Amino acid sequence: MKHIKVVDLLNNTKTLQEVTAKGWVRTFRNNQFIALNDGSTIQNIQCVVDFENTSEETLRRITTGAAVAVTGTLQESQGKGQKVEIQVTKLEILGDSDAEKYPIQPKKHSLEFLRENAHLRVRTNAFGAIMRVRSALSFAVHQYFQERGFFYVNTPIITGSDAEGAGEMFRVTALPFDGTPRDEEGKVDFKKDFFGKETNLTVSGQLEAETYAMALGQVYTFGPTFRAENSNTSRHLAEFWMIEPEVAFNDLDANMDLAEDFIKYVVRYAVEKCADDLQFLEQRLADEEKQKPQAERSEMSLLEKLNFVLENNFKRVSYTEAIDILKSSTPNKKKKFQYLIDEWGADLQSEHERYLVEKHFKCPVILFDYPAKIKAFYMRLNEDEKTVRAMDILFPGIGEIVGGSQREERYDVLIEKMKALNIPEEEMWWYLDTRRFGSAIHSGFGLGFERLVLFVTGMTNIRDVIPFPRTPQNAEF
Amino acid sequence: MKHIKVVDLLNNTKTLQEVTAKGWVRTFRNNQFIALNDGSTIQNIQCVVDFENTSEETLRRITTGAAVAVTGTLQESQGKGQKVEIQVTKLEILGDSDAEKYPIQPKKHSLEFLRENAHLRVRTNAFGAIMRVRSALSFAVHQYFQERGFFYVNTPIITGSDAEGAGEMFRVTALPFDGTPRDEEGKVDFKKDFFGKETNLTVSGQLEAETYAMALGQVYTFGPTFRAENSNTSRHLAEFWMIEPEVAFNDLDANMDLAEDFIKYVVRYAVEKCADDLQFLEQRLADEEKQKPQAERSEMSLLEKLNFVLENNFKRVSYTEAIDILKSSTPNKKKKFQYLIDEWGADLQSEHERYLVEKHFKCPVILFDYPAKIKAFYMRLNEDEKTVRAMDILFPGIGEIVGGSQREERYDVLIEKMKALNIPEEEMWWYLDTRRFGSAIHSGFGLGFERLVLFVTGMTNIRDVIPFPRTPQNAEF
Repeated sequence: MKHIKVVDLLNNTKTLQEVTAKGWVRTFRNNQFIALNDGSTIQNIQCVVDFENTSEETLRRITTGAAVAVTGTLQESQGKGQKVEIQVTKLEILGDSDAEKYPIQPKKHSLEFLRENAHLRVRTNAFGAIMRVRSALSFAVHQYFQERGFFYVNTPIITGSDAEGAGEMFRVTALPFDGTPRDEEGKVDFKKDFFGKETNLTVSGQLEAETYAMALGQVYTFGPTFRAENSNTSRHLAEFWMIEPEVAFNDLDANMDLAEDFIKYVVRYAVEKCADDLQFLEQRLADEEKQKPQAERSEMSLLEKLNFVLENNFKRVSYTEAIDILKSSTPNKKKKFQYLIDEWGADLQSEHERYLVEKHFKCPVILFDYPAKIKAFYMRLNEDEKTVRAMDILFPGIGEIVGGSQREERYDVLIEKMKALNIPEEEMWWYLDTRRFGSAIHSGFGLGFERLVLFVTGMTNIRDVIPFPRTPQNAEF
Repeated sequence: MKHIKVVDLLNNTKTLQEVTAKGWVRTFRNNQFIALNDGSTIQNIQCVVDFENTSEETLRRITTGAAVAVTGTLQESQGKGQKVEIQVTKLEILGDSDAEKYPIQPKKHSLEFLRENAHLRVRTNAFGAIMRVRSALSFAVHQYFQERGFFYVNTPIITGSDAEGAGEMFRVTALPFDGTPRDEEGKVDFKKDFFGKETNLTVSGQLEAETYAMALGQVYTFGPTFRAENSNTSRHLAEFWMIEPEVAFNDLDANMDLAEDFIKYVVRYAVEKCADDLQFLEQRLADEEKQKPQAERSEMSLLEKLNFVLENNFKRVSYTEAIDILKSSTPNKKKKFQYLIDEWGADLQSEHERYLVEKHFKCPVILFDYPAKIKAFYMRLNEDEKTVRAMDILFPGIGEIVGGSQREERYDVLIEKMKALNIPEEEMWWYLDTRRFGSAIHSGFGLGFERLVLFVTGMTNIRDVIPFPRTPQNAEF
């Protein structure tokens, strides 16, 4: 008999039919009530075992984590908390789970312990919920762009160019460390490497995506990117997924509109499609917050925060305005900031971003028109010749979630900038070609997907929102 | 005035309104007719320039590849091949394109030349079409699985495990070649590397996906995978995208059903959504075929091939039956095969797969129940103890497009197999845990996305269906 998924059984109104369900035992109570979960939803289905007519041995094998198949009548439940349950007539143990050894006991485990068991943590309510929300958000990303006529572009992961300068890169090589081929000067001979040159893992697909935007108009990437920085923080991963739309003919304003609209769309999608999971995560967060002193607790619940983002405009503030606000802020005057803001041109630190978002504006903030000196070479220089058309979106509790810009479309200005920064022209010939042939204004941004998942799930460590996190000293699984 | 995309202008029935379009000049005929393309569709919109009231200098700058903005009245076209055109009242050159230097001339370029200009080739009709079809197929992949309650899982790209054995791997490292840290024995000290161990680029996300299937039930991956093999063929890339669904409680039959249904869904999606692009690619293929001797030409046009796949069941044939067919086949008897088939157990080569698909069955074929010896360790051993529940899907012109199996769910059998193949248990503890705790039958497969794109677009070299191909000696862009 073909089994039916738990999510479909729970939504079923046709009771008194015979059904089969397969899944894993979450708990087994009173030798009678199995809470069965198959991952299709956070909800379990209650399976009522006829313990008088079930062998002792079978009953003993119904343990947390065991895989079972149950067949029986779907009927209205007398118990609280569920509409239907299965009155079991046949029960088969598919795979045992030794109660003494199974790491995922029906109790609260620390997040650290669960990270060490990343292959099993998704069997918990919290991680099942997080990963279903992550999946829904991924799909929302694609649906948003595809509905609007954007084309998905797979930019290369292995790259021969390292000009973007977004961070330290990992080397990709097929050369051996012992007996490495060397040239006459004794230097490593990368001509003998697989690709005939030095190659690294990409830090961004933007430059390649720009070449596609200048042909297909509206494109986006959604793929893994890498940073070899030794950042052991709750906001950094060595391997993470990034979304990078790029749009021909968009200026910075249109870019900000797109980013705001996009974020609201995907958050709304999760709120609508993942109600059960978000309700669980909201309660989880509320329980966590209770451990904190009153002053540190969030004013809003998880869903209130998500709805707040949906219902309010992001506050758009120029860098210059932001500096003025920060200069005259209490933490700056009282020297509470680690990095005091004393003049225009300072790079904003996480403490400043948090002040603006969490204390001053109390909503998502888009900062724009940054000093050229602290931003990347490809950003469009403003007429003032000291700021560029950059924008960062800052989120409460998360910090920077989006970084973007209008791109410098003028060949001469771009080449000057590259020269000043010693970016080799000969390596970037293809990028420069987009400014040589049919150049036009265009804009785009990058959104760190895991930071979005953090925000939507209310989790606080980025290692808990990607299945198998990669961080310094950790590439297990 | 906000510009309107060409695809929307061409579908517009409200003529005599003023509109603005932005895009790139494909051709400029008689100092009057611009064929303008913005990538939103393969179709150009004709823009009729009032050349008597346009300066000579502006007219000279309307060259192939130039970016322009035109404003004018949308009106019914008198010319053939288009319903509407723009009677231009205002024309602005956004970015010039030096006609002498622009590599993409309005003529046929060789595919080799275009590969060297991968950043510009998407501005041609053929590559614009291919990449739009690729994008549509990507979305169809996500939509298929999400509609059926599968969850998208991002398995790790950097992996510390190399047990899958699907092929040669690229090393990922932050260690220097000069002054590499060494241990006391003089061996490279990978404890000092970024992740504290040797790491490589993944060849498959399957093993990690299995751990998620045993919790969420139905999952799929869709991400980049890598092979460091020196294969300079038209069917291999060093970096390619793979789709890997994994389903708890599915046996091999259900796995074959899923794969066939999935392929038909995504092909149907492309046929329905990319009609213009596929029509162009069909004509392109027909023109290519004309260069070939009659005997080598395909019997079917591109769309006929696609519809044939949609309308016919894939032929399911056991390995044993296939060997019998091959043994008594004409090319085997006449010793035309490079590798003659003389006994059960032989690994099938591309020539054999092609014979079965293209000559014998003349339709997609699913081969199943392969000899255990020629397949991976994790495949479910059959009761005959010599075959495993593996399946490969073979496509005409492409060869293997899918490889999958029911997985060995029995801990004891799996561990025996690993011992026999010297796969280190201690590295695979997490994979073995899925068989220790709540094991159940489950199945999955991998589909090489670029091979699917090859099939749907009718292209013949895999380097032409991914934006920036990575192959031996080539990591440009």
